Amino acid sequence: MASTYNYEYFNVTFPREYVAQVEINRPQKMNAFNETMWKGIGQIFERLSHDQDVRCVVLTSAGDRAFSAGLDVQSASETGVLSGNDGLDAARVAQRLRHHIDEFQASISQIEKCEKPVIAVLHGVSFGLALDMTLCADIRICVSTTRFAVKEVDIGLAADIGTLTRLPKANIPMSFIKDVALTARIFSAKEALAVGIVSAIYDTKAEALSKAVEKAELIASKSPVAIMGTKEVLNFSRDHSVQDGLRYVSVWNAAYCNTADVTDSLTAGIQKTKPRYAKL
Amino acid sequence: MASTYNYEYFNVTFPREYVAQVEINRPQKMNAFNETMWKGIGQIFERLSHDQDVRCVVLTSAGDRAFSAGLDVQSASETGVLSGNDGLDAARVAQRLRHHIDEFQASISQIEKCEKPVIAVLHGVSFGLALDMTLCADIRICVSTTRFAVKEVDIGLAADIGTLTRLPKANIPMSFIKDVALTARIFSAKEALAVGIVSAIYDTKAEALSKAVEKAELIASKSPVAIMGTKEVLNFSRDHSVQDGLRYVSVWNAAYCNTADVTDSLTAGIQKTKPRYAKL
Amino acid sequence: MASTYNYEYFNVTFPREYVAQVEINRPQKMNAFNETMWKGIGQIFERLSHDQDVRCVVLTSAGDRAFSAGLDVQSASETGVLSGNDGLDAARVAQRLRHHIDEFQASISQIEKCEKPVIAVLHGVSFGLALDMTLCADIRICVSTTRFAVKEVDIGLAADIGTLTRLPKANIPMSFIKDVALTARIFSAKEALAVGIVSAIYDTKAEALSKAVEKAELIASKSPVAIMGTKEVLNFSRDHSVQDGLRYVSVWNAAYCNTADVTDSLTAGIQKTKPRYAKL
Amino acid sequence: MASTYNYEYFNVTFPREYVAQVEINRPQKMNAFNETMWKGIGQIFERLSHDQDVRCVVLTSAGDRAFSAGLDVQSASETGVLSGNDGLDAARVAQRLRHHIDEFQASISQIEKCEKPVIAVLHGVSFGLALDMTLCADIRICVSTTRFAVKEVDIGLAADIGTLTRLPKANIPMSFIKDVALTARIFSAKEALAVGIVSAIYDTKAEALSKAVEKAELIASKSPVAIMGTKEVLNFSRDHSVQDGLRYVSVWNAAYCNTADVTDSLTAGIQKTKPRYAKL
Amino acid sequence: MASTYNYEYFNVTFPREYVAQVEINRPQKMNAFNETMWKGIGQIFERLSHDQDVRCVVLTSAGDRAFSAGLDVQSASETGVLSGNDGLDAARVAQRLRHHIDEFQASISQIEKCEKPVIAVLHGVSFGLALDMTLCADIRICVSTTRFAVKEVDIGLAADIGTLTRLPKANIPMSFIKDVALTARIFSAKEALAVGIVSAIYDTKAEALSKAVEKAELIASKSPVAIMGTKEVLNFSRDHSVQDGLRYVSVWNAAYCNTADVTDSLTAGIQKTKPRYAKL
Amino acid sequence: MASTYNYEYFNVTFPREYVAQVEINRPQKMNAFNETMWKGIGQIFERLSHDQDVRCVVLTSAGDRAFSAGLDVQSASETGVLSGNDGLDAARVAQRLRHHIDEFQASISQIEKCEKPVIAVLHGVSFGLALDMTLCADIRICVSTTRFAVKEVDIGLAADIGTLTRLPKANIPMSFIKDVALTARIFSAKEALAVGIVSAIYDTKAEALSKAVEKAELIASKSPVAIMGTKEVLNFSRDHSVQDGLRYVSVWNAAYCNTADVTDSLTAGIQKTKPRYAKL
Repeated sequence: MASTYNYEYFNVTFPREYVAQVEINRPQKMNAFNETMWKGIGQIFERLSHDQDVRCVVLTSAGDRAFSAGLDVQSASETGVLSGNDGLDAARVAQRLRHHIDEFQASISQIEKCEKPVIAVLHGVSFGLALDMTLCADIRICVSTTRFAVKEVDIGLAADIGTLTRLPKANIPMSFIKDVALTARIFSAKEALAVGIVSAIYDTKAEALSKAVEKAELIASKSPVAIMGTKEVLNFSRDHSVQDGLRYVSVWNAAYCNTADVTDSLTAGIQKTKPRYAKL
Repeated sequence: MASTYNYEYFNVTFPREYVAQVEINRPQKMNAFNETMWKGIGQIFERLSHDQDVRCVVLTSAGDRAFSAGLDVQSASETGVLSGNDGLDAARVAQRLRHHIDEFQASISQIEKCEKPVIAVLHGVSFGLALDMTLCADIRICVSTTRFAVKEVDIGLAADIGTLTRLPKANIPMSFIKDVALTARIFSAKEALAVGIVSAIYDTKAEALSKAVEKAELIASKSPVAIMGTKEVLNFSRDHSVQDGLRYVSVWNAAYCNTADVTDSLTAGIQKTKPRYAKL
Repeated sequence: MASTYNYEYFNVTFPREYVAQVEINRPQKMNAFNETMWKGIGQIFERLSHDQDVRCVVLTSAGDRAFSAGLDVQSASETGVLSGNDGLDAARVAQRLRHHIDEFQASISQIEKCEKPVIAVLHGVSFGLALDMTLCADIRICVSTTRFAVKEVDIGLAADIGTLTRLPKANIPMSFIKDVALTARIFSAKEALAVGIVSAIYDTKAEALSKAVEKAELIASKSPVAIMGTKEVLNFSRDHSVQDGLRYVSVWNAAYCNTADVTDSLTAGIQKTKPRYAKL
Repeated sequence: MASTYNYEYFNVTFPREYVAQVEINRPQKMNAFNETMWKGIGQIFERLSHDQDVRCVVLTSAGDRAFSAGLDVQSASETGVLSGNDGLDAARVAQRLRHHIDEFQASISQIEKCEKPVIAVLHGVSFGLALDMTLCADIRICVSTTRFAVKEVDIGLAADIGTLTRLPKANIPMSFIKDVALTARIFSAKEALAVGIVSAIYDTKAEALSKAVEKAELIASKSPVAIMGTKEVLNFSRDHSVQDGLRYVSVWNAAYCNTADVTDSLTAGIQKTKPRYAKL
Repeated sequence: MASTYNYEYFNVTFPREYVAQVEINRPQKMNAFNETMWKGIGQIFERLSHDQDVRCVVLTSAGDRAFSAGLDVQSASETGVLSGNDGLDAARVAQRLRHHIDEFQASISQIEKCEKPVIAVLHGVSFGLALDMTLCADIRICVSTTRFAVKEVDIGLAADIGTLTRLPKANIPMSFIKDVALTARIFSAKEALAVGIVSAIYDTKAEALSKAVEKAELIASKSPVAIMGTKEVLNFSRDHSVQDGLRYVSVWNAAYCNTADVTDSLTAGIQKTKPRYAKL
Repeated sequence: MASTYNYEYFNVTFPREYVAQVEINRPQKMNAFNETMWKGIGQIFERLSHDQDVRCVVLTSAGDRAFSAGLDVQSASETGVLSGNDGLDAARVAQRLRHHIDEFQASISQIEKCEKPVIAVLHGVSFGLALDMTLCADIRICVSTTRFAVKEVDIGLAADIGTLTRLPKANIPMSFIKDVALTARIFSAKEALAVGIVSAIYDTKAEALSKAVEKAELIASKSPVAIMGTKEVLNFSRDHSVQDGLRYVSVWNAAYCNTADVTDSLTAGIQKTKPRYAKL
């Protein structure tokens, strides 16, 4: 299948049936993000969410040095919202800032809203926006040499594209979160694994990517109804009480477990065959 | 004390004063649950919650192979809600499904609602419903050979009896949760300990059970007022903001710390005796 | 700078520019807290919150044996709320208790409400109130010999000054929390690190304190606007849904990222100089 | 159809197809509630909720003088929870009280949880528990001579069976609610209509009951799928944000609007016939 | 100013400076909505939200007979989501339904998300979607002959585009809401005023529209910073606790009340002139 | 009893046993509030909350012309937060603004936090802060000539001391709220009554005040335990789901209904005497 996903800074490929791979591709700038890029990644994931040929997505980056160095600060200061507020009063600057942040958040949040699971493979420098983006992913794995940082305080900002919001909801111990967010210090893959930011470490980028694609293939081989529901209910539950979570999954399954996928799964289990599920 | 808790698939015993032990007993089917069982376990814990002779509960399973293989799918497909929906439109099937899930959830949630702490001892195969049930327990320990899995996607379903709701609220890192819930892969006792699903591992089932009973005895030796309040406030706080949690414990203790247990505890502390608390 | 923070049981010093150090000072009683102390610590942190010469706070305790043995039970039983309720009906005792708990909580919560990050350095005996207090801190580190316990059930009480509320919101695995809160057992620094209650262990109190001051100096060297916002947004996010968190940080930064600190940071980054930020 | 709902203090009849009428029947005591009664009414509504022959319920009371004078205080003080606490400490009395209130609330809440709409017809004295119960109903109408009161403060209590919780959520102006709840004053049908506690007033009990049955018949003539969903979604929305409400109704209708009732409704609309819907 | 808002079914005009008027224009079908229309109205309000020449919006409809008869059911059944689900299992139909509802809701919610106040002028038949849409408006006024209905149960559906969610949050008494939503009965302008669905009634459509434009002009004459903030904070407060609401407005105004509009307003007040505010 | 409540701008008197009356006293400035005043009113209500000789409070204002014209804008612009921000960047101005708003809110919120019911008597001009303050009261009554306005947009601000937060939670129809908050128009006592902002209107200030004192006396004659609980539970319920509200009142009454006030009330009821309750 030839990809129709053509974006200047992204390579979108399909390494396995039902598996999409999104590669951030600006390695000469350590995959730092300019405005075209953060708008683009939102569009890609919005499309993947509705693409019936996709059941799982791998998110990776080109080059050896960096998953992403974060926001391209030079680009942002030249063309972005902070340039040229001359003559505006503070409220009007606030308005421009708020609209800018809202738009930026909305685009990055498409990674989380994508109805298919997303596996992020981090390597090398993974600073600032690298975390904002991958905290929207469902599963994070990394290379042993990955270097993480919540870098925003070093440019005078509280991180506002999601890191400060999603780290506490990813069930990472708060003392660790505060430590890295307040100091902007670099932390290692090993630390990230210990606190649960990533759930596996591999020796090389190639190996990590290979394992991610393999895991994506496994997920894509399962009932798309069950997979979508599992992602949705876990994300809903994260933000609601146990009681609300139980009610939501009850109504959800009232809609979604009356499906041929159940009998297809059971039959395949008995017959030791690989089930083929209808498109969703 | 002879137990009056007589259930076909459960042995309820009292290995220590104020300690109840609930043993799931269908080892020939790997303790897989049929409808009689999931209704029964709810009834048992509802009774234990109000039994003044019980101050802590241990939940275990008979046999060497499995804590539980989960739902007895064969039984469910023969007699359960998914059989025989011929002629009903999708909304009416949804209604049957929702009522079924609600009833199932309500029964399993009795383990969580039980006002006495529950210690679950997992061993062997611990799949699907095994997690739904034990995530309702307060403390989980296991044997080193325990094999866990969130199995539901393999039968075409998003898990709906509580696993997807309670795992995120048990403060387990989300990346790990998504990994195991989306792949249905088996994970080990060691992994479960690393992420905090269990808080201890023991070499054998006998040792784990012995330790659980010992811990239950310790808990049962303490003020039942303090123990009940501690469980209640922790569960409330899990689902509410810090501010709401602080207010709740303030009102709770306005009701519950005007008790002889405080002076009994202090006196026993000074006299180095073991306090005896009135029934609650 | 000579401190104007004069309190009977606390030494407040300024070991580095913009760094305050609060030392609990009642070592002969293992830093157990009487009413003067828990009121005092609230006043101190309320003042630090508004002190423009302070950008980060270290919380430590005098002596080798204990960060704090918790509430001074003897003092509380002689003068406190539980003494002398003769003749009052239960509702009026409840009223006294609730007002007492509210006042106590409000004072300890000043540590959390302080708009500057707080780093707690735990050592030796760290029981009961030691946890209530340090769970209000942002970062917790400790000495390898620290002994922790949620002790309240041993005096017949559910802990009501914040431990039961803040432990679940600190993203510590629930099974571990229930284990230590229901048994009141002592747990080690190593356990505390494994579950994330502390984010680092050091061999000696001197080393831990030195590292804490160093970390505080690092935090204090950064933009005070960015640091305050980071703390605020992380605490807000802990208690709200992802969507609410994203909206809050968007409005927050509409107010706070129109600041010279951003350009000061960027300029310093380019010029490899140390930025100097205006007071906040 | 002969009713199988046989209860000492209630007459359950079926005045129209799919319409049940529950009449509280203790007129000689002004329909004051003893324990048998508040347990009974919960059982009745739990059964009606699952009764496929019922699509709408009318709640009324026997006699001319009172819908209900509220709790039968004499009965409660003789046999109830407040009698005979001698020798128990305050915490243990609190435990008895809490269990009693929880059980009482759970029973009355069955009126709200009933999946079929409930129309309450109030007349005469409607004090205390009369409001707790009817605030669980969906629609309230009354006779012009009805006299309402939130009476609980006059017996030294904050109302705890639901009035203080449900009045603010029924969208009644808070100033009015506080006025009547803090003074226990009697208020008229006209006042109740003006603030929205009732949505219609009729001259006589006979007329009000007749109108209620007519309205129930109308509701019962509509798609039971649509009616159940409408009640459920309105109650859910009352307690959640607009965003949560929109998501819930979306998932709900994903389950429930794939139904023959839609085509049956449309066809009947075109053919000007009365649709007949399958049982739910 | 010539409008660049060109839409097949809508006339967008600018009757006053800073005032936009959106007229639904399909009078020959009683302004019933087809898919082109509900998508169009969302696009219009999204644009108005960011249009610096607009400070207030009036929403009205062409013709004398109807504001809107609601969804064009014929069109929906021919081309919409419910047509042609042959061969899909219930889960896949559910998926189509949920995506359809989500998209529909998102479009209509643009009326609420519009950062400028929206005044809806209802007249004639105002059924179903007419309420979904106008409950997104800030202010509702109507003509004395307006006939309202929550019509959805009559086509076998629980209303899912917002009426069931927003009516309870519009602070309309629940008993009235349930009455009209469960019976689908027509209710009058007078009833709508009495319960607060509309805040004014006028004798003719011309008069109502004239008054709406006048009110819009008044609102548009005020500080756009103050007006936007007032709408935002009221909508936020509706969905959050008082404490959260207070915190939100505090941060909001930290961003937005450092504005020349304050001094412009004060100066104009003193000089008795009409203030001119900068664009926002 | 001679009052010990001595404040420059307030007269605090005790017109009846257990009834306090707070009179705002700056009639020559139409009771507009300067900083001394808004700090003072917070201190007064904080003291009243803990004063065992007070069971109900009446809030009124001196003079015939105004309850309050709102914030004294002249005073605020001379000495307040908006004066003299020269040289500060926008973030530092935001910080000053936020601290100012927080302090202002905290002071006014003492009226709501007061554990005794507060009855506000509005007359004449009641603009801006007059509403912020009286929306913290429990019961609002007014004189027929009272003129209300949410005035803040006219000085370029979204109201930030509570009006925009508490009006929606006071269960006032949103369409009306938006109308008056976005236009700043004056509305009448009659309108205020129709939507429920006030619950009664009287012809003269003297009559309204007399009725308020009478109502306060009635409330003060009842069990202080029951009255405090009723206020607390109603305020809690306003901000939480029905389920949370039910649980809260259950725990609250576990603490507070084990009281002699119940038997004192019942005995007085039987003996037709006026009960005398112990101090709380």
